[in-house]
Amino acid sequence: MATLEDLGVSAFINIVGAFAFLILFAVLRIQPINDRVYFPKWYITGGRNSPRVRGRGVGKFVNLNLRTYFTFLNWMPGALRMSESEIIQHAGLDSAVYLRIYILGLKIFVPITVLALLILIPVNVSGGTLLNLNKKIMYSDIDKLSISNVNAGSQRFFIHLLMAYLFTLWTCYILYKEYDNVAFMRLHFLASQNRRVDQFTVVVRNVPHVSGHSISESVEQFFHRNHPDHYLGHQAVYNANKFAKLVRQKERLQNWLDYNQLKFERHPEKRPTTKRGFLGLCGERVDAINYYRERISELDEKIAYERQRILKDPKAIMQVAFVTFDSRWGAAVCAQTQQSKNPTKWLTEWAPEPRDVYWENLPIPFVSLSIRRLIISIAVFALVFFYMIPIAFVQSLANLEGLEKVAPFLRPVIEMIPITIGVSIPMKATFFMTYIMVDGWAGIASEILRLKPLVIYHLKNMFIVKTERDREKAMDPGSIDLPENLPSLQLYFLLGLVYAVVTPVLLPFILVFFAFAFLVYRHQIINVYNQEYESAGAFWPHVHGRIIASLLIAQLLLLGLLSTKKAANSTPLLIILPILTIWFHKYCKSRFEPAFRKYPLEEAMEKDILEKASEPNLNLKAYLADAYLHPIFHSFDDDDDEEEKIEVRVDKGRSHIPSPTRSEISSESPPRYVYHYEFEP
Amino acid sequence: MATLEDLGVSAFINIVGAFAFLILFAVLRIQPINDRVYFPKWYITGGRNSPRVRGRGVGKFVNLNLRTYFTFLNWMPGALRMSESEIIQHAGLDSAVYLRIYILGLKIFVPITVLALLILIPVNVSGGTLLNLNKKIMYSDIDKLSISNVNAGSQRFFIHLLMAYLFTLWTCYILYKEYDNVAFMRLHFLASQNRRVDQFTVVVRNVPHVSGHSISESVEQFFHRNHPDHYLGHQAVYNANKFAKLVRQKERLQNWLDYNQLKFERHPEKRPTTKRGFLGLCGERVDAINYYRERISELDEKIAYERQRILKDPKAIMQVAFVTFDSRWGAAVCAQTQQSKNPTKWLTEWAPEPRDVYWENLPIPFVSLSIRRLIISIAVFALVFFYMIPIAFVQSLANLEGLEKVAPFLRPVIEMIPITIGVSIPMKATFFMTYIMVDGWAGIASEILRLKPLVIYHLKNMFIVKTERDREKAMDPGSIDLPENLPSLQLYFLLGLVYAVVTPVLLPFILVFFAFAFLVYRHQIINVYNQEYESAGAFWPHVHGRIIASLLIAQLLLLGLLSTKKAANSTPLLIILPILTIWFHKYCKSRFEPAFRKYPLEEAMEKDILEKASEPNLNLKAYLADAYLHPIFHSFDDDDDEEEKIEVRVDKGRSHIPSPTRSEISSESPPRYVYHYEFEP
Repeated sequence: MATLEDLGVSAFINIVGAFAFLILFAVLRIQPINDRVYFPKWYITGGRNSPRVRGRGVGKFVNLNLRTYFTFLNWMPGALRMSESEIIQHAGLDSAVYLRIYILGLKIFVPITVLALLILIPVNVSGGTLLNLNKKIMYSDIDKLSISNVNAGSQRFFIHLLMAYLFTLWTCYILYKEYDNVAFMRLHFLASQNRRVDQFTVVVRNVPHVSGHSISESVEQFFHRNHPDHYLGHQAVYNANKFAKLVRQKERLQNWLDYNQLKFERHPEKRPTTKRGFLGLCGERVDAINYYRERISELDEKIAYERQRILKDPKAIMQVAFVTFDSRWGAAVCAQTQQSKNPTKWLTEWAPEPRDVYWENLPIPFVSLSIRRLIISIAVFALVFFYMIPIAFVQSLANLEGLEKVAPFLRPVIEMIPITIGVSIPMKATFFMTYIMVDGWAGIASEILRLKPLVIYHLKNMFIVKTERDREKAMDPGSIDLPENLPSLQLYFLLGLVYAVVTPVLLPFILVFFAFAFLVYRHQIINVYNQEYESAGAFWPHVHGRIIASLLIAQLLLLGLLSTKKAANSTPLLIILPILTIWFHKYCKSRFEPAFRKYPLEEAMEKDILEKASEPNLNLKAYLADAYLHPIFHSFDDDDDEEEKIEVRVDKGRSHIPSPTRSEISSESPPRYVYHYEFEP
Repeated sequence: MATLEDLGVSAFINIVGAFAFLILFAVLRIQPINDRVYFPKWYITGGRNSPRVRGRGVGKFVNLNLRTYFTFLNWMPGALRMSESEIIQHAGLDSAVYLRIYILGLKIFVPITVLALLILIPVNVSGGTLLNLNKKIMYSDIDKLSISNVNAGSQRFFIHLLMAYLFTLWTCYILYKEYDNVAFMRLHFLASQNRRVDQFTVVVRNVPHVSGHSISESVEQFFHRNHPDHYLGHQAVYNANKFAKLVRQKERLQNWLDYNQLKFERHPEKRPTTKRGFLGLCGERVDAINYYRERISELDEKIAYERQRILKDPKAIMQVAFVTFDSRWGAAVCAQTQQSKNPTKWLTEWAPEPRDVYWENLPIPFVSLSIRRLIISIAVFALVFFYMIPIAFVQSLANLEGLEKVAPFLRPVIEMIPITIGVSIPMKATFFMTYIMVDGWAGIASEILRLKPLVIYHLKNMFIVKTERDREKAMDPGSIDLPENLPSLQLYFLLGLVYAVVTPVLLPFILVFFAFAFLVYRHQIINVYNQEYESAGAFWPHVHGRIIASLLIAQLLLLGLLSTKKAANSTPLLIILPILTIWFHKYCKSRFEPAFRKYPLEEAMEKDILEKASEPNLNLKAYLADAYLHPIFHSFDDDDDEEEKIEVRVDKGRSHIPSPTRSEISSESPPRYVYHYEFEP
């Protein structure tokens, strides 16, 4: 219900804000001191060395080359220069598919915007109902462009109806093409990958306890019996959470030891000291190097003991195992079939790639999982249910005029004004336009600035970084945060589809968002983010499903809106749309989703045959032997040459086609025990 | 809104009706002339011979033994005498599981009824709100026992809430136990079955056309490549619909020939004649036996030509095939996995048993199927949507008082009286009580009378039956009509669950229905019905799901009802119930449904190993060779000794553990070509 001037003020503030962020970014990124914040990906892939080495004096930290300040917007064409296949090579398929969501937004909304602006706006403007309405209902010039402006019961609504059909058909057409495309890209990506351990491996859960048998024996017996021709071996999984805690402690002490040794090397005249008590703040003062050496050796004993305990105690073996097969075909069969008469036992699924295993969550049993799901669904329901109350209140305040009127006496709001849906939905459009400018324009501009990582990097540099290794760790490239980004992206699809027919003037705002966000994220993916693992675009069915859901919501809202507009004779025509949409969704699901969930036997057999022909003497058993070994087994053997291993990790991280690798990726696991090796075919 | 007297009249009429049906049944069933109508199952299993042979004169047709008339209700204990395992032996698992639905109804509703009558009725009676209501709203004594009688905003509603929880928990507990039980019965039934061709067979659909290859070649190549160790062979499927039509024509002519030959044998002095024209009513008069012989030989030529055409024309081969494997394990793997990169091609699923194949529907392609589903779902939606209008009208007339008032001037109804949901749902209870008495009491009693089959059998006997074979065919045992019976059964669960909290006096009516219907259907299953094929209880997940849906509807209606009763503070407590119910449903689905949909590899391997040990020299290829051969290939070879084959069919029909069998079960396929053979291990 904001007036056009309010909207203008809001647009001015947000556009100025966005430009301020962009200029700040342009200045900050060319400072050598910030190089690791704005180009971490190139450090990781090895394509960039510290620019500090090149400069001298102040030039090490500040860019003194004035010419580079004038070309400060050149990141935009730069972001477009890399081709899609290069991006897949550089950052993985997930990133490339993520960028396609923005392109999808543009593909859907550019034609819709053109059509809506050319046809619907003239239809709405010449309607002129708002002038006859009760003066109490506030409206602005924007609303005159929306469906609210059309007289109730007018024949003009058939034009809106026709548009709803056209927009639905167009959206479905583009969604279908895109699903097809992504499914093809995924199959192509998977097919072009080299041999990977997870192609031969299945994870089996809920292995039943049989009295007199260990879990390992049960697994061995079961798969020998039920997959006699293809079963190769299995890898037990140990509950090593306590062990991991000890290792973390040791790592912290090791860092302090390194720091003190460095200090002593620089100032050999004075041996560093520390206090025995809490955080080194109180207690007896002792020699730091000896103290930390002692503590570490104590911890080493504890770790060795714990390690033995895990290996000997049958209770430390979880009811989970990684089962390997002698062919992709055997693994595909095992992953897709039901093994046991009791469908809650011996659950098999494809093993994730080793980097993607979250060891601590593996032992959660089936019952516990379903109870957790229940609790979460109740919590989500309660959240949505009780969230509506504050949201309804906040929405009533969410514009300047509302606030002015409400501030002195809250009563008029509560006595919550009889505005019909038919008028209020379109009028909320101005609220969402402001929202898009704040979140979608200024917000995205702040994303490229990376303010938080910038500040944290410099803080760490000042206070925590003791060694070069610490500086490596302080460089936080981050990654596309799918669980956070996808829902907010989906909101834009929802807004666009809902308002396409109702208030088309909102659409250009969304177009600007999609185009701008596409540029920014393309730049970030090329220069900053470092994806931790690769799902080969497995999230696409989710994206597709949510856009379909947005389409359904849009159709139902239009239905409600038209019925309040006394256009009830259009109801049967509109009710067909959701049915067609649901059917389209089901069709797409059966047509494309298996490509994201299952591994067809045809493909598995093809690769098996090809491999047998090209490498008849391949020792698959040796290749698979240690692939899914729990990190605990490596920690001791590798303890001596840590420094080297970190180097290996950074170097090998370049390749995004996952190679046989074992590592812990959970943030709680110490990166010191990360360990890589490769088999060259 | 019917008064107590109306209900009494209705109850009297229906109980008298039900008793009249039962007495009529008791008299009719002991007449020898009706023996084949009331005991067809025993004729089919060979446990009964025609009683006409035993009697003499009139005694052949009418029962003259007066004593048997006095024991006319002895079918009731008789129906209970057979044990469940004997019923499984006698009529198959489907029938036994079907009977369990009635027992399930009793198990759920007996404790609910006791609790509701003891606790809710006193609570409702002492509420006393209806006396204060507007006099325009009609109510009866029944309504005083319902929730309508409780004052709005009363604290008593927490008792109803507690009951809703108790009833839901009890229903879920019984449902869980029953699902467990049926799943166990199914697995036990399947495990105890002998070797069956469908255990080794998978049906593959949407075989793609490859240029230069026939469908058969494609199938052969694909499965040789992708299942090299277990593929045995395949059976192409032919489009023989035109052929079947010719065969039906021939069968009709053959019947006329038999009839005329019989006539000639009885009256050798006069050769029977017929007319050449339409239905033998006009045209030139000719010798009947010669005429039909000529026509048959003409048709034989056509049939032979059509048969050759089918065998030679590659277009007659459909994109479907039955693929057989050398082990149950191989078939289980193929049925459960995705074969092709394109998930709409090479769709595999378990083959049904040969008797269960509906040959004419096999060639429908994937796209056509999904479009048909779309059309059906639109039709169903339109039906429900537009059905509400007449239903709303009819419901307003659906009681005597309403009719009286409405008949003279329709206006008061349309001006459709402001009764709140909170009063109107409970008041509809009397309508449903009457419904239960009509459909559930008198309707079930008429089921046991078998009036329609009785009349049709005697009509056929008088006009159509020419030979003994025709008399066999006129005996129509029928079978449990699941598509019709299940929905009406589910309505009783819905009514019981909805009214358990709202109007508990409805519950005893439902209990009488479940108990009576159980007796009647048990009797019918033992003496009458002859199930055509055996799904081993595959319909249970459907039954379970619909009862859960009823539970959800009941909970939502109670929620709406309580909110109109100003008991809104109970809403958050009630909203938990549907969530818990949905979770319970999901849990049951993952726990039990695979037992009804998939064949676990463990089980397959077990049977394979057992068989290999007991019959090491079994020639599986020969055993499977003709199992899924299209009936077209047998029709000619078997033409000569039809009479014998019918005998074989009747004899062999006794065993309900399906044996290697090939036949057509569709009503359009001639039973003359039904053909059985058995392999004795």
